[in-house]
Amino acid sequence: MLDLDLGSFTHPSISQVGGKYWFYEKDEQSFPGQSFGLEIEKILHHTHSKYQDILIFKSTKFGNVLVLNGIIQCTERDEFAYQELITHVPIMSHTNPEKILVIGGGDCGVIREVIKHVEMGTVKEVTMVEIDDMVIKLSAKYLPQMAKFHNDPRVKIIIDDGFEYLKSLQTQSNKYDVIITDSSDPEGPAEEFFKVNYFNLLLNALNENGIVIMQSSENIWLNINYLKNLLVNAKQVFHNVRYLQCYMPLYTSGQLGLIVATNDCQNDLSSPQRSLPADKQSQFKYYNSAVHQASFVLPNWANSLLNN
Amino acid sequence: MLDLDLGSFTHPSISQVGGKYWFYEKDEQSFPGQSFGLEIEKILHHTHSKYQDILIFKSTKFGNVLVLNGIIQCTERDEFAYQELITHVPIMSHTNPEKILVIGGGDCGVIREVIKHVEMGTVKEVTMVEIDDMVIKLSAKYLPQMAKFHNDPRVKIIIDDGFEYLKSLQTQSNKYDVIITDSSDPEGPAEEFFKVNYFNLLLNALNENGIVIMQSSENIWLNINYLKNLLVNAKQVFHNVRYLQCYMPLYTSGQLGLIVATNDCQNDLSSPQRSLPADKQSQFKYYNSAVHQASFVLPNWANSLLNN
Repeated sequence: MLDLDLGSFTHPSISQVGGKYWFYEKDEQSFPGQSFGLEIEKILHHTHSKYQDILIFKSTKFGNVLVLNGIIQCTERDEFAYQELITHVPIMSHTNPEKILVIGGGDCGVIREVIKHVEMGTVKEVTMVEIDDMVIKLSAKYLPQMAKFHNDPRVKIIIDDGFEYLKSLQTQSNKYDVIITDSSDPEGPAEEFFKVNYFNLLLNALNENGIVIMQSSENIWLNINYLKNLLVNAKQVFHNVRYLQCYMPLYTSGQLGLIVATNDCQNDLSSPQRSLPADKQSQFKYYNSAVHQASFVLPNWANSLLNN
Repeated sequence: MLDLDLGSFTHPSISQVGGKYWFYEKDEQSFPGQSFGLEIEKILHHTHSKYQDILIFKSTKFGNVLVLNGIIQCTERDEFAYQELITHVPIMSHTNPEKILVIGGGDCGVIREVIKHVEMGTVKEVTMVEIDDMVIKLSAKYLPQMAKFHNDPRVKIIIDDGFEYLKSLQTQSNKYDVIITDSSDPEGPAEEFFKVNYFNLLLNALNENGIVIMQSSENIWLNINYLKNLLVNAKQVFHNVRYLQCYMPLYTSGQLGLIVATNDCQNDLSSPQRSLPADKQSQFKYYNSAVHQASFVLPNWANSLLNN
């Protein structure tokens, strides 16, 4: 007798184990031989959008979970760690970040974080380019603490391929101070975001001393050679490239690498340029200045491979 | 058709999935609703010792894995992170650590790390008190890169309950500069290591300004209230108590909390007192001064709960 009856619903990532339904994240290419599982309380939605398989379920202990192509994108319980780090590291590393571009970010967690800087008066313009409007709509319904600002007049949402959008900027003077690539992993619609040409498009779309950050889809324990190569690619385009890590339980290995880059060689990206006002710090659950700096610290073996 | 034939062998943590055998770590009490799995290449050993269920298998991607009572203790691929942090943080935080006591540590990874300080001339005496000699014997056979020094004349091994050993010290003048509690989790023979009385026994066994460190069995995402309580208990006995984290993929959530304590209030435990000689740094794969400091940095929400 199952506690939960899924009827005829099946999904390749969902199994019955001992009277319960479990979601298991497996990827023979990216992380062979290991698998992380979450117990399911309820299936909330499943669909194939034009671009990807979208599964949303309520887990017994981590709140609602968004899964794209079988890979966990976020859970309600720990999403703030990633959203805060990928947003506040580049914005706090910039002396005057007025125009922000988010590529991807359909769950709307990053724009929620950017809005904090709009409300502090620093950021003046926020644009998000997401390819799959289904992700935005479903996040609004099932991840309401993340998708709070997709209808806010302070945010311009463009439904388009981020890669194509950046190409269109080559003939325009529109430039950004900070670009945040919050994409899914390279398998799927985000594949182009991990190639050298993408870094060239990013550079073109940045103001002088602008900063880009992207999720790397990897961490030092999974595939450090891939990370090394991604850094080498980034360094072909940017003079100042750094690797940092976000530590959160729901990503594989409990950590996800990010790459941050600028052509301003004087900017020590591992130290924030500004401090958060004391009365605003309670809005930040993960990020603080010490976390910003500590995220760049690596174990010896990884440091020598990636930073030398 | 299974790639691997286990014959009649069964274990509650091992399942067949799609023609493969997988080990799944589940604990409804400590981490309900989540489970981490490793694909099995070969079962190396299984036994019930006098104290616990001991399973050792070769995984397809993480080398040999030691499991006690269904909980992963270490894998060959990432064990050095934990062994180095729990050993070098207290030793490098002490100005003159001559006598070291290890409680538990049957896989012998901690004494491997302590020996580095013997070879640098700092540490003069190493004692390890492990309750289960079966763990030492099996580690020597299946984890040879960890269990290298259990027969070394520079290490005194005592097969005894660490708790009883500390009690016996109450009537002796034998004291230590650093005590490292490398126990398994509270469920099982290590239960006593997480109670207030244990901190009193540790204090009694320390020289003035001595330092103790213990694994907490938890992390900030799993059960922060338990951690808060453990810190409160430790603070009843020690004036200077700090929490730090080790980030490694094979522990639940990818991170494990440690508690370090001393009665020397002038000692900022988050900053090492000494530097490693330049010609010795290559012996350390995880630990360096920056990692030491970064391990104490916590996200805002956890910092306010644990440190205020």
